[in-house]
Amino acid sequence: MKRTQVWVLSGMTVLASLSGMSQVEGQTSGSQESRAITFPDIPGYKTLICDFHQHTVFSDGDVWPTVRVWEALADGLDAISITDHLEYQPHEEDIPHPDRNRVYQIALEAATDRDLLVINGAEITRDMPPGHANAIFLPDANKLVGLDSIEVFREAKRQGAYVIWNHPHWYAQSPNGTAVLTKMHKQMLKEGLIQAIEVVNEHSYSDEALKIAIDNKLTIMGASDIHDMIEWQFNLKDGGHRPVTLVFATEKTEEALRDALQNGRTVVWFDNTLIGKKEYLVSLVQQSLFIRQTQVMESYNGKSTVVSVYIENKSDVDYILENQKDYSFYDHADIVTVKANAVTMLQVKPLKELKTFNLRFKVLNALTAPNTHPLISLNVYTTQN
Amino acid sequence: MKRTQVWVLSGMTVLASLSGMSQVEGQTSGSQESRAITFPDIPGYKTLICDFHQHTVFSDGDVWPTVRVWEALADGLDAISITDHLEYQPHEEDIPHPDRNRVYQIALEAATDRDLLVINGAEITRDMPPGHANAIFLPDANKLVGLDSIEVFREAKRQGAYVIWNHPHWYAQSPNGTAVLTKMHKQMLKEGLIQAIEVVNEHSYSDEALKIAIDNKLTIMGASDIHDMIEWQFNLKDGGHRPVTLVFATEKTEEALRDALQNGRTVVWFDNTLIGKKEYLVSLVQQSLFIRQTQVMESYNGKSTVVSVYIENKSDVDYILENQKDYSFYDHADIVTVKANAVTMLQVKPLKELKTFNLRFKVLNALTAPNTHPLISLNVYTTQN
Amino acid sequence: MKRTQVWVLSGMTVLASLSGMSQVEGQTSGSQESRAITFPDIPGYKTLICDFHQHTVFSDGDVWPTVRVWEALADGLDAISITDHLEYQPHEEDIPHPDRNRVYQIALEAATDRDLLVINGAEITRDMPPGHANAIFLPDANKLVGLDSIEVFREAKRQGAYVIWNHPHWYAQSPNGTAVLTKMHKQMLKEGLIQAIEVVNEHSYSDEALKIAIDNKLTIMGASDIHDMIEWQFNLKDGGHRPVTLVFATEKTEEALRDALQNGRTVVWFDNTLIGKKEYLVSLVQQSLFIRQTQVMESYNGKSTVVSVYIENKSDVDYILENQKDYSFYDHADIVTVKANAVTMLQVKPLKELKTFNLRFKVLNALTAPNTHPLISLNVYTTQN
Amino acid sequence: MKRTQVWVLSGMTVLASLSGMSQVEGQTSGSQESRAITFPDIPGYKTLICDFHQHTVFSDGDVWPTVRVWEALADGLDAISITDHLEYQPHEEDIPHPDRNRVYQIALEAATDRDLLVINGAEITRDMPPGHANAIFLPDANKLVGLDSIEVFREAKRQGAYVIWNHPHWYAQSPNGTAVLTKMHKQMLKEGLIQAIEVVNEHSYSDEALKIAIDNKLTIMGASDIHDMIEWQFNLKDGGHRPVTLVFATEKTEEALRDALQNGRTVVWFDNTLIGKKEYLVSLVQQSLFIRQTQVMESYNGKSTVVSVYIENKSDVDYILENQKDYSFYDHADIVTVKANAVTMLQVKPLKELKTFNLRFKVLNALTAPNTHPLISLNVYTTQN
Repeated sequence: MKRTQVWVLSGMTVLASLSGMSQVEGQTSGSQESRAITFPDIPGYKTLICDFHQHTVFSDGDVWPTVRVWEALADGLDAISITDHLEYQPHEEDIPHPDRNRVYQIALEAATDRDLLVINGAEITRDMPPGHANAIFLPDANKLVGLDSIEVFREAKRQGAYVIWNHPHWYAQSPNGTAVLTKMHKQMLKEGLIQAIEVVNEHSYSDEALKIAIDNKLTIMGASDIHDMIEWQFNLKDGGHRPVTLVFATEKTEEALRDALQNGRTVVWFDNTLIGKKEYLVSLVQQSLFIRQTQVMESYNGKSTVVSVYIENKSDVDYILENQKDYSFYDHADIVTVKANAVTMLQVKPLKELKTFNLRFKVLNALTAPNTHPLISLNVYTTQN
Repeated sequence: MKRTQVWVLSGMTVLASLSGMSQVEGQTSGSQESRAITFPDIPGYKTLICDFHQHTVFSDGDVWPTVRVWEALADGLDAISITDHLEYQPHEEDIPHPDRNRVYQIALEAATDRDLLVINGAEITRDMPPGHANAIFLPDANKLVGLDSIEVFREAKRQGAYVIWNHPHWYAQSPNGTAVLTKMHKQMLKEGLIQAIEVVNEHSYSDEALKIAIDNKLTIMGASDIHDMIEWQFNLKDGGHRPVTLVFATEKTEEALRDALQNGRTVVWFDNTLIGKKEYLVSLVQQSLFIRQTQVMESYNGKSTVVSVYIENKSDVDYILENQKDYSFYDHADIVTVKANAVTMLQVKPLKELKTFNLRFKVLNALTAPNTHPLISLNVYTTQN
Repeated sequence: MKRTQVWVLSGMTVLASLSGMSQVEGQTSGSQESRAITFPDIPGYKTLICDFHQHTVFSDGDVWPTVRVWEALADGLDAISITDHLEYQPHEEDIPHPDRNRVYQIALEAATDRDLLVINGAEITRDMPPGHANAIFLPDANKLVGLDSIEVFREAKRQGAYVIWNHPHWYAQSPNGTAVLTKMHKQMLKEGLIQAIEVVNEHSYSDEALKIAIDNKLTIMGASDIHDMIEWQFNLKDGGHRPVTLVFATEKTEEALRDALQNGRTVVWFDNTLIGKKEYLVSLVQQSLFIRQTQVMESYNGKSTVVSVYIENKSDVDYILENQKDYSFYDHADIVTVKANAVTMLQVKPLKELKTFNLRFKVLNALTAPNTHPLISLNVYTTQN
Repeated sequence: MKRTQVWVLSGMTVLASLSGMSQVEGQTSGSQESRAITFPDIPGYKTLICDFHQHTVFSDGDVWPTVRVWEALADGLDAISITDHLEYQPHEEDIPHPDRNRVYQIALEAATDRDLLVINGAEITRDMPPGHANAIFLPDANKLVGLDSIEVFREAKRQGAYVIWNHPHWYAQSPNGTAVLTKMHKQMLKEGLIQAIEVVNEHSYSDEALKIAIDNKLTIMGASDIHDMIEWQFNLKDGGHRPVTLVFATEKTEEALRDALQNGRTVVWFDNTLIGKKEYLVSLVQQSLFIRQTQVMESYNGKSTVVSVYIENKSDVDYILENQKDYSFYDHADIVTVKANAVTMLQVKPLKELKTFNLRFKVLNALTAPNTHPLISLNVYTTQN
């Protein structure tokens, strides 16, 4: 049967008519939730949710490029790139494609009239060193075919592409599971052939890659590297999600996105962990948390010095916070989990100054460097009961 | 990254190592459920769960054939056929495949060492009449290419294929949305070119197709006709499932499967509805329901004539039963829903004979003919309290 | 610790401060749902959700009267009565209460400033006949103590109370589990001592009680008869609910409620079944169902005669509908389940007149008499695509 | 209606017949989970799950004592005490009870033939100092009535009761929300009138109380202090639970329980936090975690030095672990959450010695003193792939 599609993406019914695709308002019963990833903007920038590393049947993936667009729409992404391997096509017996820009064209067409940026990309796929790398914002992927390991990066640079060193820690190529900066990589850095590095890839994270990013001023990236289905790799039902790079851009355009990447304005969201430069990471966490209400508790003799603070978390992260100990909590020990998209009560005590005070936390599931967790601060202004 | 797959199919973690695929015992937290379809066997036969109508990128589907195998394993299917369109290849610019048996080969390889029968098939795709038809158990799909509308069926017959008339009611080809037996179809039936008919396709069911099946002794079939993902089309989280044909075979082999199909031993499971010949349908429902426990209730003066009967439902169907009225229920009105894979209490009253009695129901969500619901009967033997 | 209550009733956080009770806006995470019962109003009347049969520690219940008020607020009830047994106080060693209006006073105080009507009531508790009966809208329960089986009803009548015959089918008193109108009951009816009858009590329903209601123009009632906790008796997590009487009143006042009861304007909601007089029952079902959108499907040659109709169900009932067969459905067999608080698509075919047509169903899980299901009709006006 | 109870406690159907209470095997559909609290035993001891601070209508609680027994059975508790206030009976107008052992008798009877220890107890309820205290294992609660603030403790001691200082930090009595050891308390300690202290009460935890426990060798206790319903106070649906004291006893008897308490063998489980003496706390965490399987990962050149370790968590705690940094993880940053009752994969790298190695963690949601988290160690023996 040729389709009049009614697809149900995690409980959201999307109706695609014969002539194009139009969304019917969701048929949402109580137990159904959107799988769209949710983060607030930060001052000065929009937070774009991006996944720049994905595969299709055009290399070793299992789906047609359209599926990557539909998944991205279901996940609420702002921008994607499909980056099929330039040098690895296990399906070439069946798909003897000569044009390496073809995947991009198919995806672009699938995204017509949808609010999703599709960026041309390709994965340079070599032995280590240099290993794998994504070139995105690529005018012509075909020109990268058949060049030697360094030359292919030089061609990418000539084209003005943005190049990301992929999973430098991958144990298949790096048996210790650690990212190592070889002589070749140093040469490439010197020539300006690499602008970014994956510290997160699929189910993996690398301390060493994060250190390389910091030491070499490379942009911190994370991606799904999805081959089969997002639903199958990441446990969406229980709060799971694909790894994404949150990019802080002045607007939702290719140009602004590129500018943000070039200036290192990213935070990676992986599992329940945020990784990025301190300035953007702290800003993102602070914007996620909002004091919704306060209440001074009462003792038998009048007001107490205990204040209930209701903190709303407007992000998908369950923040694991460590109290910085000028005060303690009446309803928690020193480690407090502030649940995603919910309101958490925190009772602070004892307070010398009730009218306004300051909560300070170390964010344990956020990293600005290996084993290094940022501090955040929330000002509370107590309302009259 | 080349994959060491850890896929999570609806909460079941399946680990596929670099060298082949081996399943690690599931990591099941409380809220996770298997999506495997569950039905009991019936006396004399195994119940094989089958989906013989599916698509891939080799025609107008969105996935590589391997995905159809992985989905089938997750859904607990016993047999599948992938039936790409012989005359419709929208991806032919990219997949200029000459060999119409190729999809079968890929799927067969993906199912190596798994307990899944993969049957070669192809969809004959013509205007109405004759419309679309699947030929399965097909030795060579290539020989069906380029023949005229009747001749292609004659070739299928010569090869010994089993032919299913697909979605005869499809509104795109049959604007009234009804199945109509044209002169051409009658000729085909006369020549023995069609053995079965889809009364269920994807999200649709046809009373008229069911009548054609009965009148012409065609086997009753139902299938997903999936193009994108099973998860997206069918609401798996809330008890949804793909339509399947339950085939009653003497064993789980291709030969026994074929014999069962040729002898019309099928029941279709669609949405929460069962459709099939009375003998198999009634047997399936009866085998699903099991009296687990009984209890004679007590009045202030001793035993009452009310008996609590605990009915276990060992199938995925929520049976909607209408009481046949020799007695009534203390805890339900005349319509009783017996939930899938659970135990339902039914209090029967008043009973003249407490030791043994008979429950009789019309199964409203089962069909043996249009608007015709079968009767079932459960014998209860009351245990001592 | 004396309480500063933070109670979580099915995910709704309610904060009760030391000084009275004030509700803080709910802390609702994604998976949490309200347990409030939802039904639409009907033309001319508000739909009041009522439970007039409940117990506390003042007879054989397990909770203080305040708990009944808190449960009612969580369930979204409009009116309750607590009806402790007048003649049965198993806790009298500990609660030697002389004042039978005391429970009402405690509940009334607990409901201060809440939008809940609390009605004084008591359960007359005798052997069969006459069995048990609730007197509600009772000025003084104490005056019902110590009178003989008929005299107690006459006193209730003198006081102007509204009297409901409780669970006439209860197997403890009626070993056959059936409601029987004895000579004594006939005398009581003649004297106007009974105005209503429970056809539903806790987990039970009685065909015979429904017939008595119809034959004797008694108001149809259903109640929880709760002794322990609503959460424990009714499976709230999986769509369960206490049995309630939906009363159709001109406004939410004691007077209007009483007037509605006296005029028999009720429907009982039990398990997933509605029971009541045809006029109110049909009106309630019709008001629950709303045609939200339509779409004429397209064939290859233009419009088809298949129309997709999206039906929104604004009630808590999963309606089980039987098609009345002037047409059939493209996506369902003759039995259609229209889920509670969700939108269900129904594809109607073949239609002679596309612009407007009429859907007709028998509502199988609604009863106007034993084994008698009402018909409803929905007019569809097809919108332009 | 007099009850034949069918109660559903968080999805577990419990059938209580007219004559006593017998449990029918649960009717468990997929989405239902038991609410029973789960912890492993530790070497040498059974882990008894206890709640020694609860209220009923006999003081300011809202339920009959039987409800506390039924809740305890549903929660899988091993021992409870009901500790109604000796000096506060807001319901005394209705329950003018003279016998302070009455609650215990009712609960004991409700627990007949159930595997639950019921301990007599009462709450001494005074202004601060001394504040509130529970006396449990109390032969006669009546003798504690009418004595002065110190004398009542001396009487408890004379009776051989075990005395717990309740919520010393409660802001209603201690407006700073902190536990303070007054002169009177020091005197009581000197006289041996207090054996234990609540560091957790209902929704609160106190660093200062924990310090007092340590400094004064008091047993560390936590309790629900429940007044209304466990379901309402603690978010059972989303992994919530009442605070309990885990007591490590040689057997499940009153004597062994008392011995364990007197020797300080306890860990408190509060929210998602464990609090206790290092020796028992570390033992409990270690027994919770079990290495179920290992797998040496493969690189393109053979084995890698990355090992996947599957850790099963046999407790209800989501452990928040901080890596102690001799190695790092391939699939996590330094903070790892090991989910309750599930298997978590941890990929360790780089390893010098693959055959056996040692994982070391700080358990962030466990406390042995204020802001002090214990270390645990797991030995891994790598199996052949």
